[in-house]
Amino acid sequence: MGLRNFLCRRVSFIMRFAAILFSLFCLMLSSHANSQSAPALNLMPQPANVTPGSGALRIDANFTVAFTGHTEPRLDRAAERFLTQLHRQTGLLFAKPTRDASKATLVVHTDRASKDVQELGEDESYSLEVTATGAKLNAANPLGVLRGVQTFLQLVQIKPDGFAAPAVAIKDQPRFSWRGLLIDVGRHFIPGDVLKRNLDGMEAVKMNVLHLHLSDNQGFRVESKKFPKLQELGSDGFFYTQEELRDLIAYARDRGIRILPEFDMPGHSTSFFVGYPEIASGPGSYALDRKWGVLDPAMNPTEEKTYKFLDDFIGEMGKLFPDQYFHIGGDEVNGKEWDANPKIQEYKKSHNLKSNEELQGYFSQRVQKIVSKHGKTAVGWDEIFVPGVPKDIMIHSWRGPKSLAAAAQQGYHGILSNGYYLDLGWTTARHYAVDPLSGAAATLTDDQKKLILGGESAMWSEYVGPENIDSRIWPRNAGIAERLWSPQSVTDPASMYSRLDVVSARLEWLGLTHRTYYRKMLQRIAGAATPEGFAALKTLADVAEPVKEYTREETALAEATSLTPLNRIVDAVSLESDTARHFSELVDKFLAGSCHDATIAAEVRADLTRWSQNDAAFTSLAQESSLAKEGAATSRDLSAIGATGLTALDAIAASKPLSADQQAQLTSTLTEAAKPKVQLLLVPVGSVQKLVAAATESTGCSVK
Amino acid sequence: MGLRNFLCRRVSFIMRFAAILFSLFCLMLSSHANSQSAPALNLMPQPANVTPGSGALRIDANFTVAFTGHTEPRLDRAAERFLTQLHRQTGLLFAKPTRDASKATLVVHTDRASKDVQELGEDESYSLEVTATGAKLNAANPLGVLRGVQTFLQLVQIKPDGFAAPAVAIKDQPRFSWRGLLIDVGRHFIPGDVLKRNLDGMEAVKMNVLHLHLSDNQGFRVESKKFPKLQELGSDGFFYTQEELRDLIAYARDRGIRILPEFDMPGHSTSFFVGYPEIASGPGSYALDRKWGVLDPAMNPTEEKTYKFLDDFIGEMGKLFPDQYFHIGGDEVNGKEWDANPKIQEYKKSHNLKSNEELQGYFSQRVQKIVSKHGKTAVGWDEIFVPGVPKDIMIHSWRGPKSLAAAAQQGYHGILSNGYYLDLGWTTARHYAVDPLSGAAATLTDDQKKLILGGESAMWSEYVGPENIDSRIWPRNAGIAERLWSPQSVTDPASMYSRLDVVSARLEWLGLTHRTYYRKMLQRIAGAATPEGFAALKTLADVAEPVKEYTREETALAEATSLTPLNRIVDAVSLESDTARHFSELVDKFLAGSCHDATIAAEVRADLTRWSQNDAAFTSLAQESSLAKEGAATSRDLSAIGATGLTALDAIAASKPLSADQQAQLTSTLTEAAKPKVQLLLVPVGSVQKLVAAATESTGCSVK
Repeated sequence: MGLRNFLCRRVSFIMRFAAILFSLFCLMLSSHANSQSAPALNLMPQPANVTPGSGALRIDANFTVAFTGHTEPRLDRAAERFLTQLHRQTGLLFAKPTRDASKATLVVHTDRASKDVQELGEDESYSLEVTATGAKLNAANPLGVLRGVQTFLQLVQIKPDGFAAPAVAIKDQPRFSWRGLLIDVGRHFIPGDVLKRNLDGMEAVKMNVLHLHLSDNQGFRVESKKFPKLQELGSDGFFYTQEELRDLIAYARDRGIRILPEFDMPGHSTSFFVGYPEIASGPGSYALDRKWGVLDPAMNPTEEKTYKFLDDFIGEMGKLFPDQYFHIGGDEVNGKEWDANPKIQEYKKSHNLKSNEELQGYFSQRVQKIVSKHGKTAVGWDEIFVPGVPKDIMIHSWRGPKSLAAAAQQGYHGILSNGYYLDLGWTTARHYAVDPLSGAAATLTDDQKKLILGGESAMWSEYVGPENIDSRIWPRNAGIAERLWSPQSVTDPASMYSRLDVVSARLEWLGLTHRTYYRKMLQRIAGAATPEGFAALKTLADVAEPVKEYTREETALAEATSLTPLNRIVDAVSLESDTARHFSELVDKFLAGSCHDATIAAEVRADLTRWSQNDAAFTSLAQESSLAKEGAATSRDLSAIGATGLTALDAIAASKPLSADQQAQLTSTLTEAAKPKVQLLLVPVGSVQKLVAAATESTGCSVK
Repeated sequence: MGLRNFLCRRVSFIMRFAAILFSLFCLMLSSHANSQSAPALNLMPQPANVTPGSGALRIDANFTVAFTGHTEPRLDRAAERFLTQLHRQTGLLFAKPTRDASKATLVVHTDRASKDVQELGEDESYSLEVTATGAKLNAANPLGVLRGVQTFLQLVQIKPDGFAAPAVAIKDQPRFSWRGLLIDVGRHFIPGDVLKRNLDGMEAVKMNVLHLHLSDNQGFRVESKKFPKLQELGSDGFFYTQEELRDLIAYARDRGIRILPEFDMPGHSTSFFVGYPEIASGPGSYALDRKWGVLDPAMNPTEEKTYKFLDDFIGEMGKLFPDQYFHIGGDEVNGKEWDANPKIQEYKKSHNLKSNEELQGYFSQRVQKIVSKHGKTAVGWDEIFVPGVPKDIMIHSWRGPKSLAAAAQQGYHGILSNGYYLDLGWTTARHYAVDPLSGAAATLTDDQKKLILGGESAMWSEYVGPENIDSRIWPRNAGIAERLWSPQSVTDPASMYSRLDVVSARLEWLGLTHRTYYRKMLQRIAGAATPEGFAALKTLADVAEPVKEYTREETALAEATSLTPLNRIVDAVSLESDTARHFSELVDKFLAGSCHDATIAAEVRADLTRWSQNDAAFTSLAQESSLAKEGAATSRDLSAIGATGLTALDAIAASKPLSADQQAQLTSTLTEAAKPKVQLLLVPVGSVQKLVAAATESTGCSVK
């Protein structure tokens, strides 16, 4: 699942600069996102149909909710959770939910039960009507209710006379039935409570599949009763017990979310072999890998004992995870262990398997039969899509819409993750522009299009641990959630960003920590006792992002492993800087007004001044801390960017355009500052470059 | 336990102004606390004996810990928790604890087991030696180990070349054996996970008793199997199951903390009567009280069925809570229900009980016998200390050191809470100055002094809920913890504050939320999507505190009840503003240097300028939110304070002293600004008053 190493190293030099250019492009795209143009309804994902009403429903301590129609304990818990969340959003205390519709402010009606085990494609639609006197939410089954109450919660906001939900009529249903988030718990273990808060976040933005990548070269994360050496020898002690997983699955079901287990095979599977080397292709013994990348170990596809093991293993795991789908991985086998094993070579010859791809195809088909035997439907990465593979499998595409379209043309179901890799550091706008039915898929027939069921954002965890995973997933994941839920026509990044800011703040009330851990990590880096003590570091970190795509490996001073601490500035900073985005919106607004607006000019100047003066304070802070010290060069760059912007702004203010020479000099400063140091990018470079252009005789709004 | 209502209303007008004066006094006391004078070791509580060494022990990923000597599962968990916390503080990943001392960086040796149920007065001493090459922690039993590892964790800090612990030799033991925190879960229910994070905080500062005030007029919070109507009718559904309590008790024991249960009787007991009116003195029926204060309902001390009930009840609760001590409350009976009940009046006469005090004395002695019968030692508030009460009870003093001393003189054990009421909004310095052996207790004989076992800070919860309880307890509670642990001679508030800032930041890594929830609550009040969106509110809130003592009731627009939302500015702001304290330290430093220092002057000016300009931004923010709007008058005051300070600063800078008239005018502005509006005090008033004095011809450093 993904360009993880050798492919990537080759293209990343190009990509690094492409990324800078692209982020500039995105800044331009998002130039109209600001609080002025924010829509009245901060809903995310945007519902399918919204008809504004007049007035608003007051939300005070007298607010009550009644659940009517079909009842079940899950709905009772949903009602409690709804009130808890409404309490968190408002601080108000509410009476317990009732079944008496006659007096309730919000009446939630459920027609009937949903399936005992949530199925792909179940009805998630709902209608919600809010008037000045009350609100009604109707849904065919509990899934629609879960989606609808989240919409209602998003409607509630504080107003000059108290909390209120605006009057509105909404009819809503998802565009795609598979809206997932993949979390890689193999490379770095992610504790159950962190998964739970992310399930809360998924529920808030109406995602419905949590895909757990449960095994990889660096760790096996599930307790097996049949093969206990998997967790005993393959996990460093970091795994979920079966009881914890059952609890997690129930937690997810309560939120209308399926849990899709993935056990990657035949590659990415060293953690199987530490305890069970007999199913590997190499001579062993095996130890857990600490390095990242596409590594050699692979299961032995030519031995019956491998399939016997997998039959027992998949039988056990298929019972533990109730979902209909079972992900068998299948990506990135480099074939080296197969090539080095004479018996495997012999087997290939005697069975007329001409390549390692064909050998893997044989393996995949055997495993799919096992999965089918245990009543499940197999899902696998692009690689499992080989000629002759049965039609009931699901293709999970890390390669892109083209391979997805090719599969659909042959009648295979598919979901897209290419374009939704959260670890690459793309902007939300860039993910948002990726549509599962774009590119090659856009030319499919309607029937073929129906085979493309949705997609999954993917949180690969090489540089992700419990402290920073929330900030790597959120808020950007909300943009992908909208792409997968809302109509195809919902594409305006400015609108998306203005709603994303609101969602981001609210996610913290659900327990997500993308903003709070950022501050804590900075404070730790600085060794500061007070917020003032790390203010200069925060000013820097607020506008920095980690290097993009797969460039972190090559820019590392020492090779990173699974034991490398994730405690540096690059681990703390956001993957998409809000501050830098807001600055870019401000600059765009300034330029759009031909540099006339003095108020905006003053705001731009305040930011630039703060940056230009920051290095002095940063330097004194950095002297005390080895981790802060790493940012020294980036801090100097930031002050240079600030000073450059001020020069441009002065020229504009004085109506004295910069000469070509001056412009060249400033541009050269910016080019230098755009080069990443200690794996940090300074995002405002692009906007300041625009100011320099504007201040230059030949190009910009040089006369005020 | 406390002046809760009628006493208080009378004195609070005086107290309100006394509090302002006192906080000014404290500001002066703390005038030397700044980062310059911070000691090298940020230990809190300060150990009994510290001998600095030379060099430092490097803490990197190779750090290992070995536990030797006596072993038990609790110590294994302590070792894991120690490494988890060290990981949180550093972001480094460590190997699992071992028993092999030969290769470990830190060797922890435990001589023997402690008691199965933790007892008052058990040995908590430890010695800790850190050198450049390793560290040794020795303790007689697991309690000393728990205390010692916290000291080690506090030693670790980031340095220019990485994390390190300075070389040092420490021999440490507590001054008092009873170092408690009372949390009132009766008035507002506090969920178990909130209690757990507070237990983590207590462990960090070496407190050893969590006193749970489990019942009051507003709620009964424990599941009783014998009397299920207690929780079913008396809790609004908010109570701890017995299983949850057993889990909490085990969690506390792991941290060397006893859990002391309190069931308040015969007063403060409405929640008993909702389900069991037959033990009340009034005719019933009863409903949970929503109002605060000293209310009428009281148990009927003249009926045998009351004692039968309490015998069964205390028998059940005595088994659930393993601690030797059992708190029976006993405070604030107003006697009205007794006076109104003819049978009780008759009983008093026939039993020669001359007053309600005597009647309560009779009740207390009966209940104490029941407590004894169940193998427990009774603890009660001052009121239970009546002539003839047996010597094995413990007096818990809310009235003050005088009553504690009186009890000690008669041979009774006692603990102090007067002076440690966290809900009164005192500064840490003021709590810190309260010593259990000061005042009347200072004149006791040494043997009598030994009867005073320590104290408890008390978090009464009229205005406290799960969102803001951490910020009401922390960091101030750490100052009280130091008072109860460290030698009596440790009294310097400047040193205390500089260490408190460090502890405060670290407590957040344990999961406490005193800083993070503050931000979240402000963001909710403003209805802001981004930090910029509530910056003006934060500037105001950073220097505001709730009104002090018991004045919140009288300044309320509507009477507060247990159903009143705690979502206002006054609920969010800190009870002791760090920002205001740092400003006051800055002003004091400026004045101490005869107003000569231009750098300090610039810092003072920056703060004042920010405040003077804040009202414009605040006003625009407040227009959008009913909750923010409440702060309008206070915001105008803050800008007036800022402007006043700037006028004074300008006069000083220009060496043009203010005339008496000018000074009077500025003082009148400050006097106006010092009056609380919407229950908020602006703390910098005192410091700005000092600047005005300094700028005035007759008093200050008027010539630069």
